[in-house]
Amino acid sequence: MTTPLEHNGPSFATDDTLLPAIAQDIDSNQVLMLAYMNREAWEQTLATGEAVYYSRSRSRLWKKGEESGNVQKVREIYIDCDADTILLKVEQIGGAACHEGYVSCFFRQCVEGELKVIGKRVFDPQQVYRKPS
Amino acid sequence: MTTPLEHNGPSFATDDTLLPAIAQDIDSNQVLMLAYMNREAWEQTLATGEAVYYSRSRSRLWKKGEESGNVQKVREIYIDCDADTILLKVEQIGGAACHEGYVSCFFRQCVEGELKVIGKRVFDPQQVYRKPS
Repeated sequence: MTTPLEHNGPSFATDDTLLPAIAQDIDSNQVLMLAYMNREAWEQTLATGEAVYYSRSRSRLWKKGEESGNVQKVREIYIDCDADTILLKVEQIGGAACHEGYVSCFFRQCVEGELKVIGKRVFDPQQVYRKPS
Repeated sequence: MTTPLEHNGPSFATDDTLLPAIAQDIDSNQVLMLAYMNREAWEQTLATGEAVYYSRSRSRLWKKGEESGNVQKVREIYIDCDADTILLKVEQIGGAACHEGYVSCFFRQCVEGELKVIGKRVFDPQQVYRKPS
């Protein structure tokens, strides 16, 4: 059963609507991160095959890995029942999705009321990102 | 390394702040759904060990499975680097998270510009949910 995407893609009510997009590793199924897409980010992701999000802090499109080189090759895309959440299965170039150098942004586990770092660093952020001048 | 949760849990700016919460199957690592939590939903989830979300459409707390019985037993909880997204690893009672009867709400894949149903129904929604009177 297929239905045309223009009527059944993510439901961006307006060009400014932001929807959450989950990135999951295509091989391990580890959840890597959650970011947001507006319609343009969605369209650029489809067009380029690499994840493009909308950065709420920078108020602009943000191609994942534009600075670090750790882009996300999009292998599969899923939409949820309400068409208001996107799930990307990706190949994470560089092996780490988190700007803090961890494989996943979810590198802290809540255990008995405390947060415990359970992830391992793949890279040193200070070596990967430019320092502010 | 552990840090006290009161300073390092999810960053609910106010009692009304909603943060996305991803539910992932503890065994298969399949992403089941995304919903939202406010502070009270988060606290009830911690206190009960079963997922409680905030329903934006109903404007109230929503214990997952309160009607269908398909509750989510929370096995592990993770917080992302920005402390604004929650990841729950759950045991999904009933085997289906989606109100449409699918294992996952992400039962449609975007393939070559069309949405294709790739999930299989575990239950018939009409048999599980009460019809409006």
